[in-house]
Amino acid sequence: MSEKEQLNQVEAVARTRLKERGVEVADIAELVFFLQKQYHPDLTMEECKLNVNRVIAKREVQNAILTGIELDMLTEQKKLSEPLQTILAIDESLYGVDEVLAFSIVNIYGSIGFTNYGYIDKEKPGILARLNDKSTGECHTFLDDIVGAIAAAASSRLAHHARNTE
Amino acid sequence: MSEKEQLNQVEAVARTRLKERGVEVADIAELVFFLQKQYHPDLTMEECKLNVNRVIAKREVQNAILTGIELDMLTEQKKLSEPLQTILAIDESLYGVDEVLAFSIVNIYGSIGFTNYGYIDKEKPGILARLNDKSTGECHTFLDDIVGAIAAAASSRLAHHARNTE
Amino acid sequence: MSEKEQLNQVEAVARTRLKERGVEVADIAELVFFLQKQYHPDLTMEECKLNVNRVIAKREVQNAILTGIELDMLTEQKKLSEPLQTILAIDESLYGVDEVLAFSIVNIYGSIGFTNYGYIDKEKPGILARLNDKSTGECHTFLDDIVGAIAAAASSRLAHHARNTE
Amino acid sequence: MSEKEQLNQVEAVARTRLKERGVEVADIAELVFFLQKQYHPDLTMEECKLNVNRVIAKREVQNAILTGIELDMLTEQKKLSEPLQTILAIDESLYGVDEVLAFSIVNIYGSIGFTNYGYIDKEKPGILARLNDKSTGECHTFLDDIVGAIAAAASSRLAHHARNTE
Repeated sequence: MSEKEQLNQVEAVARTRLKERGVEVADIAELVFFLQKQYHPDLTMEECKLNVNRVIAKREVQNAILTGIELDMLTEQKKLSEPLQTILAIDESLYGVDEVLAFSIVNIYGSIGFTNYGYIDKEKPGILARLNDKSTGECHTFLDDIVGAIAAAASSRLAHHARNTE
Repeated sequence: MSEKEQLNQVEAVARTRLKERGVEVADIAELVFFLQKQYHPDLTMEECKLNVNRVIAKREVQNAILTGIELDMLTEQKKLSEPLQTILAIDESLYGVDEVLAFSIVNIYGSIGFTNYGYIDKEKPGILARLNDKSTGECHTFLDDIVGAIAAAASSRLAHHARNTE
Repeated sequence: MSEKEQLNQVEAVARTRLKERGVEVADIAELVFFLQKQYHPDLTMEECKLNVNRVIAKREVQNAILTGIELDMLTEQKKLSEPLQTILAIDESLYGVDEVLAFSIVNIYGSIGFTNYGYIDKEKPGILARLNDKSTGECHTFLDDIVGAIAAAASSRLAHHARNTE
Repeated sequence: MSEKEQLNQVEAVARTRLKERGVEVADIAELVFFLQKQYHPDLTMEECKLNVNRVIAKREVQNAILTGIELDMLTEQKKLSEPLQTILAIDESLYGVDEVLAFSIVNIYGSIGFTNYGYIDKEKPGILARLNDKSTGECHTFLDDIVGAIAAAASSRLAHHARNTE
């Protein structure tokens, strides 16, 4: 496989993993819409999806998706050693590696995205409520932060572009 | 002046500047109480103040306070060159150096503070509402983020310590 | 002035400030060449310049340039209040706001740039040696870190693009 | 198990994992000595060890150690799914999650540690040379960055404390 094919494979698998774990681009686009509609009255879901797709096209974001979802799946399969297995299974409150990974996504579009990330992480609208539902038996300790971070980064991208083309 | 006296002077001036700009330790402690009361039902304002004071005792935090307030004051005095003068005077939405400075404070107590920072930055409870009131003619482009960041960092510190002593 | 003109003005002034303070795009491109030549034997100065220019085209980077150079100039003019004036004049070793600003630049192209930033900050090749020469009476406490950060970010950009087009 | 015992267990396992992977506190202390001896002529290995131990006592650092080493071990056991398995096995140059985790350690003692981190990551003195030796069949994609980050954080801690007690 050439290097270019390998890179395309990283993006393809990252997108597949999101779907397999129940997250569609439209779900993340809805978070962007929730965060940005008050600032951009003419905002469409199409624009939100476009910005989400551009964020997912970044290699840094794909790496975070692959690594975070892998740890979530290994936790569900009880394949991690203790105490990490329990820490991730209960989404222990002093464990911050999930947030650390999320910030590496938000950072790509600059610091203005951090506020949005913190806000939806606390409010848990849309898909984030489902990912945080502990009653399903699924583990999304990393994925919920990654999804919030992609939405926050896409919001920053949208804000930067709106200003450049007005 | 010895080096130790100089260090003490940095902390003393940082604390004086906060007061001069209308921010008391109790104001920041109220933000911590707002963020943490649901997780710690027995939480007192005394504990919140203690944690805020420990955050302000950090050199990194004092540096951010001195630098941010200096830029706010120079903006009020119209002593900056353009376009920075206008960017800071209107708290321009694509300017993120204020958030960058704030994160350097939040970071000190680990990543679990970022959510709290983003949340109060969006909700603007207590002192943050006043610092964001543009009708006063004052400029708090940096200070409002710094105050939110100290509250978020103090909340992280409190969360870490609560867990260690339970 | 329309919003688009204002944005163009931010970039134009940021570029002018760099020149006024003695930093040409070619100086930063040389740092990129220094960092990357071993990994890319066919690397040209033209490619290095192109990548530096793309980094400077980012709004986040322009904000850091404008803010950092403003503080350097105010320090030279002795217009800051104490103890900040002295801290910046002597580039005091526990003051880290200059590094914090620099990381906000490096971050834009992902974490792989941090190693390069730390390395040239320690080695001080080319333009960085001159910016750190205290005998000139000039103050470049912020600018030297910003220049190193732009070079590190441009190196990351180059590394990402080299891989995508091979 | 009480919560306090659980916390102590996290630290105990983190320390055991480091040893099992061939990293002693003394190895990291030597990196600190390498970084700091020129600034502190009277520096002893005892002080370096003390500072390394204080860094490892931080929960954020323990979380990074447990998570990073787990991923390294799963890579050696070929238990990760593709393409993550290959990316980690070859320490692929565009993969930056290892650096992201490392920065969460460096950050705790403020921004002055980043330069040191970047420098030893490039120079690879002492233990870092061995961890990067690909001929052993071992995978230390995360561990080498974590060890460098602990050394950089311990150096920052040492610098802060030296100044406060002089």
